[in-house]
Amino acid sequence: MKSPAALKQIFDDYIATNKFEQTPVALYEPINYIFSLGGKRLRPLLLLMGYNLFGERVAEALPAAFAIEIFHNFSLLHDDIMDEAPLRRGKPSVHVKYNVNTGILSGDVMLIYAYQYLARLSALPRYAKIIELFNQLAIDVCEGQQYDMNFEAEEKVALSTYLKMIELKTAALIGGALGMGAVIGGASEKDMEQLMQFGRNIGIAFQIQDDILDTFGDPEKFGKKVGGDIVQNKKTFLFLKALEQADSTTQAELLSLYEVKKEDNTQKISVVKGIFEDLKVDVMAAKAKDEYLAKAFTALALVGVKEERKQYLRETAHILMNREL
Amino acid sequence: MKSPAALKQIFDDYIATNKFEQTPVALYEPINYIFSLGGKRLRPLLLLMGYNLFGERVAEALPAAFAIEIFHNFSLLHDDIMDEAPLRRGKPSVHVKYNVNTGILSGDVMLIYAYQYLARLSALPRYAKIIELFNQLAIDVCEGQQYDMNFEAEEKVALSTYLKMIELKTAALIGGALGMGAVIGGASEKDMEQLMQFGRNIGIAFQIQDDILDTFGDPEKFGKKVGGDIVQNKKTFLFLKALEQADSTTQAELLSLYEVKKEDNTQKISVVKGIFEDLKVDVMAAKAKDEYLAKAFTALALVGVKEERKQYLRETAHILMNREL
Repeated sequence: MKSPAALKQIFDDYIATNKFEQTPVALYEPINYIFSLGGKRLRPLLLLMGYNLFGERVAEALPAAFAIEIFHNFSLLHDDIMDEAPLRRGKPSVHVKYNVNTGILSGDVMLIYAYQYLARLSALPRYAKIIELFNQLAIDVCEGQQYDMNFEAEEKVALSTYLKMIELKTAALIGGALGMGAVIGGASEKDMEQLMQFGRNIGIAFQIQDDILDTFGDPEKFGKKVGGDIVQNKKTFLFLKALEQADSTTQAELLSLYEVKKEDNTQKISVVKGIFEDLKVDVMAAKAKDEYLAKAFTALALVGVKEERKQYLRETAHILMNREL
Repeated sequence: MKSPAALKQIFDDYIATNKFEQTPVALYEPINYIFSLGGKRLRPLLLLMGYNLFGERVAEALPAAFAIEIFHNFSLLHDDIMDEAPLRRGKPSVHVKYNVNTGILSGDVMLIYAYQYLARLSALPRYAKIIELFNQLAIDVCEGQQYDMNFEAEEKVALSTYLKMIELKTAALIGGALGMGAVIGGASEKDMEQLMQFGRNIGIAFQIQDDILDTFGDPEKFGKKVGGDIVQNKKTFLFLKALEQADSTTQAELLSLYEVKKEDNTQKISVVKGIFEDLKVDVMAAKAKDEYLAKAFTALALVGVKEERKQYLRETAHILMNREL
């Protein structure tokens, strides 16, 4: 069994030897560009860790890990176009560095190449199951992105709908990556399902934690300015929980604060933070996050491999929640 | 063995019972919209005809035929965004009726659903081969679209490069559809390959015919105004062959004619047509088309099924070339 650091190194080497050198260059160069921007490679790492719970020949899972990373970057690429995001990992987004058409088409071919890499596993007896899991997570991510876009146009969103959105947009990919790794490693259907539950719940906890840190995090540790979500009027767990908890006066105040985007946000941030604290939604969010984490670890405990083999996954989950990855 | 009309009916019924009723509606409604615009359904029909050369249980090939039609419509949807085409089959394009973001995301999920429908064939022994053929045609179409976009920015394009482009953008999908049908029907590798050759050559002949008809066709029979390619300065077979054949004076004249887009195009069309006729590129294009057709029928002759079973494919190819489909 390999450490996460060792798996990450194996995966980085695999990416480095699988550059997109095909023609036309205009189609493939943006793919190499987006991979050159780096990233945590969290999803392929989790796939390999899920595999390594059951299987020892890590190389056989590498094409699937790469498929997951290609898919993830495809979705970032198209999301950046839709969100008009000028930057990705501090560098120009693909549609800014090249153009929107290139962004659309290079993204499209990335999605196909994800399946092309999965096809390298076609000799495995459970190839069909691997494709099935991948199709499902890919559909989930698209549906999640659509809900996310819908939310922008809606004044109020139910917290349960928000949770459904982050489950689709974020958690399904993490759960799916772990499930695919498990299947390639030869896990039983039951073990695969528990591992996916672990992943999905970690994914939801991670997103709630993200919402908390954006407003209440230590900027030095978190690595970005706090209050960004408030400035952008984002419908986060905190905001939606606050709407749920507030009396009608505070509700109206919150909604009116979220109607405008101001140049100087300092006061808006502090007023909104104050409302959140008064309503104790920071505490409620932390509690919800902990409940998802607990569900995740309960599911992991039910995976039928020796407890010591699960230690790396537990550690990685904690590292992830503490934003040290 | 079923007639093309019978297969078309079976396919239309299949589409009608496989509407996209999922949520979020904003993601799936545009897919139903693009299918509601109709179309020839040529590619799924060819897949079913390719299948029916070898297999009699047409129902087993339907999910693959639908996957091909979903893919084709996905590529039209994204191409219309890239080309800023306001209309598709006389109705507003998806990105016009909805918006660009919807067009991108609904297109993405269509591509995934193409694989989702293919996954219904996962119990077939040659499932991996079906996916392999699909991946290849999908990559080809994206590469073809990129070459097509590149050409717009280039003053001169070699005729051989143009032929490569139409092979990727148009012919690969027709060849791939026939190949997938053959594999599902249980064809040998050799028969599959010959049938794909048939499809690819028909596809190239079809595109050259399209270029000829756009400039020299009978507008009543062709169904659109002649000269559209000339007005839009499109680098067609005729234009590129003309550049190849012309002396330097005529070359310069042609290039300068293609530098501007005029309000009143009547004279430009007639001057360019005159140059094409003087250089006999209309005759050369017809000859090239006939050569691709001949290659197609030679390949079809080598497919190891009784000649009478191939009659429907021969007829369909002729109908297609005469624009009666």
